[in-house]
Amino acid sequence: MSPLQEARLHYQPQLPNFLKVILSLRVAPQQPLPLSKEYVDLLQAQFPRSYSQPFLQFEVGNGVKNLKPLKVGVVLSGGQAPGGHNVIIGLFDALKKMDSSSQLFGFLDGPKGIVDNKNKPLTEAVLAPYRNQGGFDMIGSGRDKIETSQQFESAAKTVQSLDLDGLVVIGGDDSNTNAAMLAEYFLQQNLKCRVIGVPKTIDGDLQNEFVEISFGYDTACKVYAESIGNIARDALSAKKYYYFIKLMGRSASHITLEAALQTHPNITLIAEEVEANKKTLQQLVQEITEIIVQRASKGKQYGVVLIPEGIIEFIPEFKELIKELNHLLAPETDHPQKLDAQPSNDAKIQYIAAQLSPSSKACFRSIPSEIQAQLLLERDPHGNVQVSKIETERLFIDMVKPELKRLQQAGTYKGKFNAQPIFCGYEGRSGLPSNFDAQYCYALGTVAAILIQEGMTGYMSCVRNLTQPVEQWVPCGVPLVPLMHVEQRNGKATPVIRKALVDLQGRKFAEFSKQRSNWALNDEYCTPGPIQFCGPASLTESTVLT
Amino acid sequence: MSPLQEARLHYQPQLPNFLKVILSLRVAPQQPLPLSKEYVDLLQAQFPRSYSQPFLQFEVGNGVKNLKPLKVGVVLSGGQAPGGHNVIIGLFDALKKMDSSSQLFGFLDGPKGIVDNKNKPLTEAVLAPYRNQGGFDMIGSGRDKIETSQQFESAAKTVQSLDLDGLVVIGGDDSNTNAAMLAEYFLQQNLKCRVIGVPKTIDGDLQNEFVEISFGYDTACKVYAESIGNIARDALSAKKYYYFIKLMGRSASHITLEAALQTHPNITLIAEEVEANKKTLQQLVQEITEIIVQRASKGKQYGVVLIPEGIIEFIPEFKELIKELNHLLAPETDHPQKLDAQPSNDAKIQYIAAQLSPSSKACFRSIPSEIQAQLLLERDPHGNVQVSKIETERLFIDMVKPELKRLQQAGTYKGKFNAQPIFCGYEGRSGLPSNFDAQYCYALGTVAAILIQEGMTGYMSCVRNLTQPVEQWVPCGVPLVPLMHVEQRNGKATPVIRKALVDLQGRKFAEFSKQRSNWALNDEYCTPGPIQFCGPASLTESTVLT
Repeated sequence: MSPLQEARLHYQPQLPNFLKVILSLRVAPQQPLPLSKEYVDLLQAQFPRSYSQPFLQFEVGNGVKNLKPLKVGVVLSGGQAPGGHNVIIGLFDALKKMDSSSQLFGFLDGPKGIVDNKNKPLTEAVLAPYRNQGGFDMIGSGRDKIETSQQFESAAKTVQSLDLDGLVVIGGDDSNTNAAMLAEYFLQQNLKCRVIGVPKTIDGDLQNEFVEISFGYDTACKVYAESIGNIARDALSAKKYYYFIKLMGRSASHITLEAALQTHPNITLIAEEVEANKKTLQQLVQEITEIIVQRASKGKQYGVVLIPEGIIEFIPEFKELIKELNHLLAPETDHPQKLDAQPSNDAKIQYIAAQLSPSSKACFRSIPSEIQAQLLLERDPHGNVQVSKIETERLFIDMVKPELKRLQQAGTYKGKFNAQPIFCGYEGRSGLPSNFDAQYCYALGTVAAILIQEGMTGYMSCVRNLTQPVEQWVPCGVPLVPLMHVEQRNGKATPVIRKALVDLQGRKFAEFSKQRSNWALNDEYCTPGPIQFCGPASLTESTVLT
Repeated sequence: MSPLQEARLHYQPQLPNFLKVILSLRVAPQQPLPLSKEYVDLLQAQFPRSYSQPFLQFEVGNGVKNLKPLKVGVVLSGGQAPGGHNVIIGLFDALKKMDSSSQLFGFLDGPKGIVDNKNKPLTEAVLAPYRNQGGFDMIGSGRDKIETSQQFESAAKTVQSLDLDGLVVIGGDDSNTNAAMLAEYFLQQNLKCRVIGVPKTIDGDLQNEFVEISFGYDTACKVYAESIGNIARDALSAKKYYYFIKLMGRSASHITLEAALQTHPNITLIAEEVEANKKTLQQLVQEITEIIVQRASKGKQYGVVLIPEGIIEFIPEFKELIKELNHLLAPETDHPQKLDAQPSNDAKIQYIAAQLSPSSKACFRSIPSEIQAQLLLERDPHGNVQVSKIETERLFIDMVKPELKRLQQAGTYKGKFNAQPIFCGYEGRSGLPSNFDAQYCYALGTVAAILIQEGMTGYMSCVRNLTQPVEQWVPCGVPLVPLMHVEQRNGKATPVIRKALVDLQGRKFAEFSKQRSNWALNDEYCTPGPIQFCGPASLTESTVLT
C-alpha cells in the first residue's frame, strides 16, 4: 500500500446529521410517485406489487427503536466507479450499529454471484483494507444480469439459503432496473428479502429529479479534468500540438461537459447537441477545421479538443452505418466468414462497402481506412461493433487533416497541424474516491441499511442536498418503478430506468454555450490539478455539482 | 484559475538553510573536476577557457558582501517539465534580494529568443501568476539550438545589447551542452555575460555523480504512477483487461522503472536491459506471452504491462530497421515520392520491404501492418522515423495475440486476451509541480543567481542531499565540461553531456529485479494516488528519490 492509501484507511467519512442518529431514525412515507404517463399500464402489469410505492422521507423519532439483527447481501454490478467499497462499508457499519450480530455477505463478481450463490462473508477484518479505497476488487463486479426465469429462481434460492433480509444492488440504470425486478419477484414469491438499489456510474447518466448524481462521477470528472488541465497547459507551453482527447461516457456527454467547464478547452463536442441539430460527420469536421483555421490566423498552432466516447452513435448517418454493420456482421449471416477470407484490409473494406446502402456506403467511404478497419474488426461475440473501441479522437484528426490541406492549397490556411490523440478512460474508474464520493458512498450505504431495517423494497438509496456541507445532506428513499420509461430492446417493450442525457436547456450547458466561442480562440485554459484530500475545505470538500 | 491553482500561488517554497543567508554566502572553489579520460584532448581543444573549472562549494561568510545589481537573461529550452516557472521565480527573488535594482529578462520560445533577441522583462507583476504553477507558458520554450557561428554572434549581440551579466539556460543534456558552448564563446569574446545551466527533464536522464536528479522528474513520475495505480486497480476489479501502458521517456527507462517500483505491474520492459541482453522483438513477445499464459492458468485474464516509449530503439534488430528506413526515406532519395505514389498502404509496405536488407525485411515483415504503416508515414522533415509516434503498446498487443492463438490451438493456453493500449505522456509534463519540485526549482534558481553574482560561468546550478529535509539540502556549482563525453553526431565527434541510462547494477534496478517475478503472477498492485500538497509531510514532502 502507498502512504496515501494508508492515510485514507484512517479517514473517517462524516455522516449527515440525519444519519448520525440512525438508531432513532424512522422513515416517513409520503405520496406515491406518479408513473411515467405513457407507460402506466405496462409498468403496473410488470410491477403489480411495487408500482405504487411512496417516496420516503426520514424523520428523527423518539428514543431507540426495536432494531433487528439483519442478514444482508450486497453486489457490485457493471463498470467500476470510485467509492463502491465505501457503500459496502457504510452498509456494514450501519448494520453493526443497529445490531452487532447483523451479517453482511458480498456476492462475488457481479449478479452471477447471486445466481450461483458465490459469496464472501464480510467482516470488519475483510473490510478494513478497503476503507476509502478505489476499485471494486474486494468482491469484484460483473456485467451479467438476472434475466431468465431460471436465474430469478436461482437468486431466490440463494437469498433463502442465506436467510437474507435484504439485498443491496450497487449499479447503474440497468442494474437498478434489475433490482426493481428482483424486488417485485421476491414480493411475488413472498420472500422476506428486501431489495435496495444504489446509484453508481461515473457517466453521470443516472440522475433525475430525485437522484442528484450517481456516485463515482465526482471523482472520475476530477481525475479527467486533472489530465486535461495538464495537457492544455502543455499545449499552451509547447505551442505545437493539437490534443484530441476522447473522454469516457458512451451514452451521455456529462463527463465531457463537466470537464469542459473545469478546463476550458478550445473545442468540445457534446453528443446530445450533435444529435439535436442533426449534424453530419462532415459538418463537425468543418466546424473543427474552421476554429483551427481561425486560431492559425492568430498565430496559434495548438489547442485542445474534447470528444465524448459515444459521439458517433449520436451522428445520425453514423448511427445508421453502425446499425447496418451490426446487421451484416451478425454471426448468423455468412458475411463474417467471407470478410475474414478477404486477403487484405483493403479487400475487406471493399467487400463490406459493396453490401451497404448508398447513404451508409457514402459515410463508410468518407472515413479514414484505419477507422474503417476498426469498425470491421472490433466486434463483440454478437457481431456488434464495439463503439467504445472506435478511436473517435483519431477519426477527427484524420478527417480534419485533408480539409486543412485543401485550405492550405487554396491559400486560406497557413499553419502546421500536428495532432496527438489521447484517451482519458480507465484511470478514472478505480482511483481513490474524493472526499465527496467517500462520504456520499458511506451515506448511501447507511441509507440502504436503514431502508432494509424499515422493511422497504424496490427503492433506491438516495442522499440529497449534496451541494451543501455534509451535515446538511438529506437521506431519502426513492421508489424505483416511477423512474422507469419503456424502451424497445430486442424488439420487446422493456421497462428500464431512464438514462439522463445532457439537458440542452440546463444550467451547465447554458454556461458552456456562453463561454465556448471565447474559449475557442482565446486560451482560457484552467488547471484543476490533482484531487486533494487534506487542507482547506475549498480544496477538499468541493464537488463538481457546484 | 482553479481553486488549487489559486492556493498554490500562495505556497512559499522553503529554502535550504544555506540559501537563507544568500547575502553573506560565498563560493568556495575546490579542485577542478577531471575530464572524461578518453576525450581530454578534444574537450580541452573545444573549451580552452572553461575546461578546468573547479567544483564549487558554498560557505557562509561574515557579514554582508558587496553585492552588485545584476542584469540577467533566462531561457527555457526543450520539452516541458513541472517546476520551470519556479526556477525563474527563484532566480528573480534572489536577484532582487541581492539588489532591488537587478533586472531579469525572459527570452521567448526557447534559444531562438536569444538569437533574435525576443525577450520579455520579468517583473513581480509578470511572475506572480506563475508561482508554483506548471507549464512553460510564461515565456515559452523551444527545441532550437544555438549552433552556427552566426547564431553565436547573434547571441553575443543580444547579451551585449541588454548589457547582461548572466544568462541562465534551463534545459536537458543538450541544452546544458549548449550552455557550456555559450559560456566558452562569451569568455573568448571577453563578454562579461556568465552562463549557468539548470538541469531539467522529466526523463531523469540528466543525473550523475553530482546532479542527483533533474527537476520535473519527481512530479512526472508521480503523475504517471497515479494513472498506472488507478488502472492496475481497475484491472484487478474488472478482471477482464490487459492494459499495455506506454510511458514517456525515449532515451532511458528511468520513468518506467520508477513507475514500476511505485505500482508493481505484472510485466515491465526496461530498454537498457533489453539492449544489454540483446533481446529480439520475438523474444520479448515470447516473454510477455509466457506470463500471460501462466496468469491464465491461475484464472487471471487481466494484468498491467509497462513499456518505455523508446524500447524499439533498444531492440538491436529494430534499431537497424529504423536506421535503414531513415536512410531510405531521406528527402534526397527518390523513395519518398515513389512511396507516396503507391496506390494503397499494402502496396507501400510491399514497396519498402523490397528495399530492405534481408534481416531488416524479416523484422519489418514480423510486425503488424498498422505499425508498419506508422513506420512509413510518421516521419519528420528529414525523413526520420518519429520513434515517439510509434505505438509500441499496440505493437506488443498485436504481436502477443497470434502467439496466444497458437497456444490456444495447441491446447496449452485457455483464456481470453482482451487488451487496451494506453499512453501516459503529455499530462506529466506540465502539471502543478509537487512540493519537492516546487522547492527544488526555487532553490536551483536561487543558486543560479548566486553563481552569476560570484562571476562563475560554464556551471550547472546544483542542489544536493535531496533525500533529506529541505533545510539540509546543499547547494553547489558543477562545471559543465567535465560532465561531457564525445558522441558521433552527423559524422562528427561532438562533445555532449552524457545521458544517464538506467544502471542495471544500481539499487533501483536490483529492487525491481528482486520483485518482478512475484509481481508477475501475484497481484501486488499499489495505488500511489494523486499528488498531495497539504497534510502530513509523509504525503506531501516525499520524493521519488527515496
